[in-house]
Amino acid sequence: MVTNKIIESEDKLKVINIGLDGFAKDMRQQDISVVDVDWYPPADGDPNLNEILKTINFDQDLLKRIKNANKMVIERVKNANPQVVDIISAEEALELPIHTILHSGPPIEWDRMCGPQKRAVLGAIQFEGWADDEDGAIKLLKKEKITLLPCHQYDAVGPMTGIISPSMPVLVTKNEPYGNYGFSTFNEGRGNTLWFGIYDMGTLDRLKWIRDTLGPAMKAAVKIHGPINVFDIVEQGLQMGDECHARHAASTALLIKQLIPSMLDAGVSGKTVSSIIRFMNENSHFFLNFTLSAVKVTMDSAHNIPFSTIVTGMSRNGVDFMLRVSGLGENYIVGPVSSMDNAVYYTGFTVEDAAGDIGDSAIAETCGLGGMAIASAPSLAPFVGGSLSDEIESIQKLNSITLDTHNRFKMPAMDMENTPLGIDILRVVETRTVPFITTGVLHETSPVVGQIGTGISNVPVTLFDQALMALAKEWNIITQSSDSEIHHSN
Amino acid sequence: MVTNKIIESEDKLKVINIGLDGFAKDMRQQDISVVDVDWYPPADGDPNLNEILKTINFDQDLLKRIKNANKMVIERVKNANPQVVDIISAEEALELPIHTILHSGPPIEWDRMCGPQKRAVLGAIQFEGWADDEDGAIKLLKKEKITLLPCHQYDAVGPMTGIISPSMPVLVTKNEPYGNYGFSTFNEGRGNTLWFGIYDMGTLDRLKWIRDTLGPAMKAAVKIHGPINVFDIVEQGLQMGDECHARHAASTALLIKQLIPSMLDAGVSGKTVSSIIRFMNENSHFFLNFTLSAVKVTMDSAHNIPFSTIVTGMSRNGVDFMLRVSGLGENYIVGPVSSMDNAVYYTGFTVEDAAGDIGDSAIAETCGLGGMAIASAPSLAPFVGGSLSDEIESIQKLNSITLDTHNRFKMPAMDMENTPLGIDILRVVETRTVPFITTGVLHETSPVVGQIGTGISNVPVTLFDQALMALAKEWNIITQSSDSEIHHSN
Repeated sequence: MVTNKIIESEDKLKVINIGLDGFAKDMRQQDISVVDVDWYPPADGDPNLNEILKTINFDQDLLKRIKNANKMVIERVKNANPQVVDIISAEEALELPIHTILHSGPPIEWDRMCGPQKRAVLGAIQFEGWADDEDGAIKLLKKEKITLLPCHQYDAVGPMTGIISPSMPVLVTKNEPYGNYGFSTFNEGRGNTLWFGIYDMGTLDRLKWIRDTLGPAMKAAVKIHGPINVFDIVEQGLQMGDECHARHAASTALLIKQLIPSMLDAGVSGKTVSSIIRFMNENSHFFLNFTLSAVKVTMDSAHNIPFSTIVTGMSRNGVDFMLRVSGLGENYIVGPVSSMDNAVYYTGFTVEDAAGDIGDSAIAETCGLGGMAIASAPSLAPFVGGSLSDEIESIQKLNSITLDTHNRFKMPAMDMENTPLGIDILRVVETRTVPFITTGVLHETSPVVGQIGTGISNVPVTLFDQALMALAKEWNIITQSSDSEIHHSN
Repeated sequence: MVTNKIIESEDKLKVINIGLDGFAKDMRQQDISVVDVDWYPPADGDPNLNEILKTINFDQDLLKRIKNANKMVIERVKNANPQVVDIISAEEALELPIHTILHSGPPIEWDRMCGPQKRAVLGAIQFEGWADDEDGAIKLLKKEKITLLPCHQYDAVGPMTGIISPSMPVLVTKNEPYGNYGFSTFNEGRGNTLWFGIYDMGTLDRLKWIRDTLGPAMKAAVKIHGPINVFDIVEQGLQMGDECHARHAASTALLIKQLIPSMLDAGVSGKTVSSIIRFMNENSHFFLNFTLSAVKVTMDSAHNIPFSTIVTGMSRNGVDFMLRVSGLGENYIVGPVSSMDNAVYYTGFTVEDAAGDIGDSAIAETCGLGGMAIASAPSLAPFVGGSLSDEIESIQKLNSITLDTHNRFKMPAMDMENTPLGIDILRVVETRTVPFITTGVLHETSPVVGQIGTGISNVPVTLFDQALMALAKEWNIITQSSDSEIHHSN
């Protein structure tokens, strides 16, 4: 980032050093006053990227189109009003073809999947009764009897391994003003769970309970209660210690007190409701999947606005990272995920044990939540340095790569400042500041451990570079090389 | 507060002005550099108080006794572990004599009571069936057929008007390590409620519902659940936007998710549980009475430690303010309440409409909650200036009159700083900084309006002066006049 500095007229010579520290050494030795400025060449000095940025900046017509498109994207995000309107099976909701399993992140074939996602797929095959054991499940996969597709392709969103199989009940979330729908399973909680890449008899029992007990009870409750306004709860959660990605303790409690009376009024038995509240009470991530389905419909409604440079989706499968930019439409950028070396590991684990960055949940950060709201969750301060002031500094930095702030999402510890909204790839490419994601870390190889840490992951900056090159190509800006890895959603 | 300032050696004359601004005027006109220091004479220069403070400061033996006593008080407060163990009628719990009604604040006769407390007493008499209407209730009072006593005298605590009548169910709160008990009714919520000084058919219906439905259901739930650890919930609430006096939104939600499963398991009908959750969902003060009973048993266990100068109780009845100091034992100080001119009034109301400062709830501030934790509740920032930094400044100021911080109560917006604990009357008398209370304001005369504002009230500094004089008398420190208004609990 270029910092401008005005030299005040003085008798003595003053030098502003924007180069390496060493440049100033000689002058300092000659008693010349030197001010170091934290300056980096735009886009790390990459000539292609600089040429594109320059071309855009000199094209008033293009700039205007970009500005208008981005304005429309922001408007749509702010106008979104996602409501959970029903709970039905994934099979019915998504019209899944037979033997199809959805996963988080961009498309990936079985062999390339990371450990936890593989284990979760094997679990889901058994849960669906397509195989009796792991060997049987592997055989089906080897024979290509199972279709693996990204959640994203079905307007769905899955945290961590993000597995959705046909008989799982899903939240049906409608974006009221735009009429589009999004879907997410119920969160399984901590421990031996599919989303953490574990499958055992306990996992199976829980999945059955979710399908046969929780799902129908929630459906009955929503019918009596009416649509659940997700952002109403998110808004309050942000005032109560949640940043609404890694932490949903408050919002889960708010959902309980809002929804449970309707569940009882619907005639669900006291015993069942008791078990459901206990489940939610022990699972502070319960509301995560509500938030994610709401963010998904929000960002989908702001997607595919030509000329917009705003990020509308980020998701990972532990191997590849997918970046969606509104103006790229159905084209998206894929590249390797970051390693999880910024995370806080539980005792006994290190980054060596970790699967790569994983989950569709990073879409939260495109909508002013998670990392973009980290100062709402002082308990997550260890993620970014340890203190609230580190969180505030992070937010201030993120404001340099976003175009606006979210009108409804406010951070009490920053005097109700609104959260950064609208990640602009132009700003990221120029400044090299990347968004970060508040996330969990999974064990790569162990079939029993599950989560081994929490923390932040940084989005690889090269994805933004590639997105810019892809846009440049669409806008007929010619550069020396345009080797970006562009993919197309079918 | 005396601020020390070191004069750096310089050629030019510099003057430090600790007097009024005018003193410095002449010197400034002569181009002499003047630094104004915000200095006040200790105890406002009162010779008696200064003599007492000086005598104490020069008596090493006395100082040591005070220090040890205060250490013991703080230890007891920190060791307290208040648990709600049962719900029974006030009659049974408190062994109330017939036709007795308890109220907040120090003892007060009917004629001197403020408007809201009078109206609440009249309501309680009708609720108990001792009179059929208001006129009948007034007649009983005039004939002195009704005994009015402070909650405090029965180890009970009542917010705002603080009315407890025999058939009301009360929380029975036990302080595990010390074995003492405290009591509080259930919070009625907002609107036409006794604690706000309103009594109508809706109030009566609600009181009956609390007695016949909520109370028994809660009792059944606690029996299955086991004791409710109040400070576990308070601790979490402080992390979620509550300061646990004026705001209990999070802690109420936490209680719901923790306790309701046991209520269902106890066989309470779905319809009843549904109505209870709805009631709690609409009443973000619900947990207040849990907090207060817990604070009451805590501070009671730290009371009556000879030589301690720490405040163990503050309560008001809209007319008089009662200050309890541990070392004063059963003697307490009474003086007029502050007017509510620091409050934020609802549209259409002013301080002219307000009853005086009221409620036993100010005991929260003696235990590191409420005003002492205001930076935990950024939503209350308008109480102290509007921004979080005002809240933080308030806490920093309060740290100058407290001897320690509460080990369990932390403020996320202050990087988990612990809340100020142990209001020391010596420090208050010397510095003139007084604790403030986060509170509501009631209409003095209207039988229908109820709450007309929220905000802070300052504890009158003269009460601390009188407490010091009372202690001085006990310690045989002779001063010119010792006209403090000391009262004795029976």
